[in-house]
Amino acid sequence: MGLSTSEQAAITSGKDFWHTEGVESAGISSVTVTDGPHGVRMQASSEDVLAGVPATCFPPAVAGASTWDPELLRRMGEALGDECRAQDVAVLLGPGVNLKRSPLGGRNFEYFSEDPILTGVLATAWVQGLQSKGVGASLKHFAVNSQETDRMRISADVDERTLREMYLRAFHKVVTRAQPWTVMCAYNRVNGIYASEHHWLLTQVLRGEWGFEGLVVSDWGAVVDRVASVAAGLDLTMPGPDATGDAALVDAVASGRLDPALLERSAELVRTLVEKAGKRPAGSYDADAHHALAREIAARAIVLLKNDDGLLPLAPGEKTVAVLGEFARTPRYQGGGSSQITPTRLDDALTEITASTSAAVTFAPGYTVKGEADEALLAEAVATARSADVAIVFVGSVHETEGADRESIDLPAPQVALIERVAAANPDTIVVLSNGAVLATRPWDEHVPALVEGWLLGQAGGSALADVLFGRVNPSGRLAETIPVRLADHPSYLDFPGEHGHVRYGEGLHVGYRGFDARGQEVAYPFGFGLSYTTFGYGAARASATAAGVEVRVPVTNTGGRDGREVVQVYVSLPGSAVRRAPRELKAFASVEIGAGDTAEVRLTVEREDLAYWDTRLGRWIVEDGEYLIEVGSSSRDVRASVTVHVAGDPARVPLTTESSVGEWFADPRGAEVLGAAFAAAASEQAGGGLMSAMTANPEMLMMLGSLPLSRMAAFPGSPLNAGDLDKLVEAAN
Amino acid sequence: MGLSTSEQAAITSGKDFWHTEGVESAGISSVTVTDGPHGVRMQASSEDVLAGVPATCFPPAVAGASTWDPELLRRMGEALGDECRAQDVAVLLGPGVNLKRSPLGGRNFEYFSEDPILTGVLATAWVQGLQSKGVGASLKHFAVNSQETDRMRISADVDERTLREMYLRAFHKVVTRAQPWTVMCAYNRVNGIYASEHHWLLTQVLRGEWGFEGLVVSDWGAVVDRVASVAAGLDLTMPGPDATGDAALVDAVASGRLDPALLERSAELVRTLVEKAGKRPAGSYDADAHHALAREIAARAIVLLKNDDGLLPLAPGEKTVAVLGEFARTPRYQGGGSSQITPTRLDDALTEITASTSAAVTFAPGYTVKGEADEALLAEAVATARSADVAIVFVGSVHETEGADRESIDLPAPQVALIERVAAANPDTIVVLSNGAVLATRPWDEHVPALVEGWLLGQAGGSALADVLFGRVNPSGRLAETIPVRLADHPSYLDFPGEHGHVRYGEGLHVGYRGFDARGQEVAYPFGFGLSYTTFGYGAARASATAAGVEVRVPVTNTGGRDGREVVQVYVSLPGSAVRRAPRELKAFASVEIGAGDTAEVRLTVEREDLAYWDTRLGRWIVEDGEYLIEVGSSSRDVRASVTVHVAGDPARVPLTTESSVGEWFADPRGAEVLGAAFAAAASEQAGGGLMSAMTANPEMLMMLGSLPLSRMAAFPGSPLNAGDLDKLVEAAN
Repeated sequence: MGLSTSEQAAITSGKDFWHTEGVESAGISSVTVTDGPHGVRMQASSEDVLAGVPATCFPPAVAGASTWDPELLRRMGEALGDECRAQDVAVLLGPGVNLKRSPLGGRNFEYFSEDPILTGVLATAWVQGLQSKGVGASLKHFAVNSQETDRMRISADVDERTLREMYLRAFHKVVTRAQPWTVMCAYNRVNGIYASEHHWLLTQVLRGEWGFEGLVVSDWGAVVDRVASVAAGLDLTMPGPDATGDAALVDAVASGRLDPALLERSAELVRTLVEKAGKRPAGSYDADAHHALAREIAARAIVLLKNDDGLLPLAPGEKTVAVLGEFARTPRYQGGGSSQITPTRLDDALTEITASTSAAVTFAPGYTVKGEADEALLAEAVATARSADVAIVFVGSVHETEGADRESIDLPAPQVALIERVAAANPDTIVVLSNGAVLATRPWDEHVPALVEGWLLGQAGGSALADVLFGRVNPSGRLAETIPVRLADHPSYLDFPGEHGHVRYGEGLHVGYRGFDARGQEVAYPFGFGLSYTTFGYGAARASATAAGVEVRVPVTNTGGRDGREVVQVYVSLPGSAVRRAPRELKAFASVEIGAGDTAEVRLTVEREDLAYWDTRLGRWIVEDGEYLIEVGSSSRDVRASVTVHVAGDPARVPLTTESSVGEWFADPRGAEVLGAAFAAAASEQAGGGLMSAMTANPEMLMMLGSLPLSRMAAFPGSPLNAGDLDKLVEAAN
Repeated sequence: MGLSTSEQAAITSGKDFWHTEGVESAGISSVTVTDGPHGVRMQASSEDVLAGVPATCFPPAVAGASTWDPELLRRMGEALGDECRAQDVAVLLGPGVNLKRSPLGGRNFEYFSEDPILTGVLATAWVQGLQSKGVGASLKHFAVNSQETDRMRISADVDERTLREMYLRAFHKVVTRAQPWTVMCAYNRVNGIYASEHHWLLTQVLRGEWGFEGLVVSDWGAVVDRVASVAAGLDLTMPGPDATGDAALVDAVASGRLDPALLERSAELVRTLVEKAGKRPAGSYDADAHHALAREIAARAIVLLKNDDGLLPLAPGEKTVAVLGEFARTPRYQGGGSSQITPTRLDDALTEITASTSAAVTFAPGYTVKGEADEALLAEAVATARSADVAIVFVGSVHETEGADRESIDLPAPQVALIERVAAANPDTIVVLSNGAVLATRPWDEHVPALVEGWLLGQAGGSALADVLFGRVNPSGRLAETIPVRLADHPSYLDFPGEHGHVRYGEGLHVGYRGFDARGQEVAYPFGFGLSYTTFGYGAARASATAAGVEVRVPVTNTGGRDGREVVQVYVSLPGSAVRRAPRELKAFASVEIGAGDTAEVRLTVEREDLAYWDTRLGRWIVEDGEYLIEVGSSSRDVRASVTVHVAGDPARVPLTTESSVGEWFADPRGAEVLGAAFAAAASEQAGGGLMSAMTANPEMLMMLGSLPLSRMAAFPGSPLNAGDLDKLVEAAN
């Protein structure tokens, strides 16, 4: 490639915080990379690496995911691409596709869901949208970075099946479908090994199995040992410069400790990235149009959790409205940390509600912006609520940020007091939540007729909320994460956030709704749930297996009087599976606009690869043969139609060995034949004595012996098997 | 020692199934070892290794543990010692001290409890009793053999803190207090390594840390590789002979692959065992007296779970009694597998109830002995119940055995039908359970006024049940394991029994009641629970710390009209502990006989070592300094008195390193001083620019940086730290 080893070392670490290093003589320029994911955060000040120049603050992933609509995410990606072009950004650092393992995760607002398929499909569309503009994505944080506590060191201890099926599945989907320009390795360790030095993750799986063609960049400060990282498959260390590491690389190549081809490959990938980035045209964007898009996505992200007696939507001009809660005036619209955007403008709900109705709108803050209790504010809010027809209470989380996990999922006590006092004063009370991760709603939600989950909605959240409250938008957002009754119910509860450098992923596959369903637990609001101002009826579902997977069709009718959008969800299970599985798993979904009274024939595809489980014995994905149960529903706990379909399985015979048990031999047709013959021969030789006869005579004993590996049985005195003959049996059986 | 290498190899494997190998020329004889633990199972037939000569079938450990009385267990051990002498047995293969991790464990009936302290104290007394007769115990199965599924291969994947505090704690207690002659290694793997080849377990921990002086014997067939086992610290491979393994050992010594001192040590331990065994006098035993002891222990093991309106005890001669259920006539009194005893006699409840009252006793089997549904039997039972004053329904598990875990904790449906139909026919219905592991009691227990947990009680269970039903014995048994509402509630539920060779101990420390308490879950009957025919009142508890631990005193008054026995339980917690702990943990208990109206001043000792947690960073046990909460109760969820006590902690400073985080440095007084000075120096040098000023200016950023290891901070551009200075900082701080 024409670069010296020291030049290769130099360009595989950054020039500074936000730029790659170039080599002028080789025509490799320096390009800008900067934080995302829901806005372009260009550093504005050399002193404060986190302060940014104004950009559109789109809804964070917690909200984007609640749309369950990849097309919206694709449009968000395109808009972000335009903003990147306008600011000469080559790579935007997103999307974040880590699973929300615990509702306490401090960075949950930047992640999509507790489900890997939902995450993967939405993030794929986002990446495709961004990269369609010639700007690179950075799929992060690879991998298993589902907490902030001790994130620079903690080892996520997780078994391979869980890793593959849950924590890597979204990464896999995005890499294979969208080829992001870069993948960002995580800070944490995975099963004891730093992600930045994890050869299995960065090379064997990412490049070998998935065919990733791009560059692996470190999270900022994630590299401990440059040489170990390059050897593992990491290409670009950020930030830089890193003279010490550059020298270590040169030394390692010179001394033969590092294969020079690896460093050359990494440098080549940096060059390729820079060349790709060089092709994008400069651009500009229409801030008003982007604000409108942010508003559209935000409105689609709002989840209507409760709406007794059709209290919502409010008819403009009909009822006087008391708006209560400081967050109506001072919106919570994004979280803290590296994703924090300086917005181009900022809508607040109070202004937007006031503009939406000709009836009187009054306001009282109810609590301080820091969430502190204040009896005078509370009393004022109650009085304000009492004198209006309808009360809308804005509450939410006070602080969610990168760098720290939460300690509780409860609303601050002063806000709960506000809800309860207002609801007692005005029976027509609507609660609007602003939060980046789930909040407990029990028991206060039992006392309010309407509850709106408003997440962190970005800079247009205020207008989007008014759109939904007044019915300009019929809500269609759905929960991408379960709202539990109590934090202690959560599958991750006993094992989060770990201590002394390790966190055990004790719930295994049973992340989120999978765990609640497996234990048959009550939840406050289930995964996939969300109400509409209209209603939908489902007809009979049909399913047919194809080489690509399973095609599902179901007619859905808008049975109400208002146009609306239904999110049709397909959950799959395999009764009688040979491996442990969650009771139901999301495998396909579609957000469908249906006019009042109309019926849509909804078609969904379950991809065959999404039916597979990871078999640790065979070291590969296996689609089991069997009758799969296809449940079509409006949420994970509201199945409206179901059908079974036979799916032909992958060949998956586990070879018999001397360590296979007697039971496993007898469960295999050929094994049973071979071992049965050996036993029969031994029985005739031993003429009725010893272990053999005891075994065949006593069924209980035979059962106990069923778990004996062949090698161990052969070692027993009086065994029908001879240690010397085992290899012949194995050969005959396979 | 005078033995050749081949002689050493020969005596470190068995002569046959039940004898060690001797060396006549060296004066080493062959001795008998045989199955326990709740009876002496001498093989009666050369064909069937599991058939035994008659012996007293004492209550299995599930029942013994429910007495919560080490003195009873000591007397059982002594009686077993006498029976061993009478049959020339040198080592009895017990006790089994594996924790009951899941109620599905097939061998739970042979194990004591879900709590390690209760297990350890009771097993210690049993071993001391047995060994006082000159007969050796075999503490088994070392370690983490808490399931039968795939037991020959499964890897119990468990973190070290959980291993130490839960799964090894009972072994530790028995080894250090009773020095069992032998410890039996388990079949399974522990974190991937066969217990029979686990050097850390068998040598580092067992001998090195605990000071075990005896011999490690394999479970029968647990050795995969003789050489690897001897190298790991296993001494005696059973059964034998094992000519192939003997030759492999000789070869390994000759080729230098095995340190000859290790084989010599093992052979020496076999010789020592044989010599110790040779000192025991021959003996005989009084079968009647042993039956009476079996009855006494069984009666003390019975747990009265429910007794509305004092339905029990029955007054002899007062009411006619309908006895229902085949198990009243054909008792379930022990489980299947290697512990199965041919009893010297067998009491049944029907006969004993009939003998206990002059009023009419009628009987109907209700279901078949195999537990099958039979409408005619059911109808007959209902009619029988209707025509009597009181109905006693005997139900239980149908099959519990070594070699297989259960699939459910439910009673067979025909038995539930019997309970429900009888209870509908006769309001005075008493249910008696016979089971080796917990059974779900909801919802049927809500419809019966009295419920008696009769476990598997050994050969005198029938008479013991009559003793309790008629009040000759006032019940004092307590649950040594939680009865959950549903199996799905259990902490182990999502991770049992694993698959494909691995089982993750996902609940970690939260085994049994610790998990239910941590999640605040409802249970059917809590750990430590059991009613009496009298009542007890507790006075104020006092606690004082000593060098040995904490002395607790509490006055307990028998406030009822009948002499009785209370099991006083001490649970400990440390609010604000720096490590995750269960909400309360049993640390001491006492079973105390108190006359009606009397008050006993109960004294209990919490041993200091039982307050310690295992610190994985320091690699040792640490008693934290702090105000410990001492809760004295009648069950784990019935705290009657509490008191706090200050316990002075162990010195436990974790040394600061370059991988310690900025937050950890600042949390340490000396570290804060050193790092603070370094930051100040850098700030004055950098004159207000770069990372340093950004950091000090922005508290949010400082918080994000708090989790940065020093080495990683030093690598950031503009860092206040210089990589070259870190070692000096570490030196200054420690």
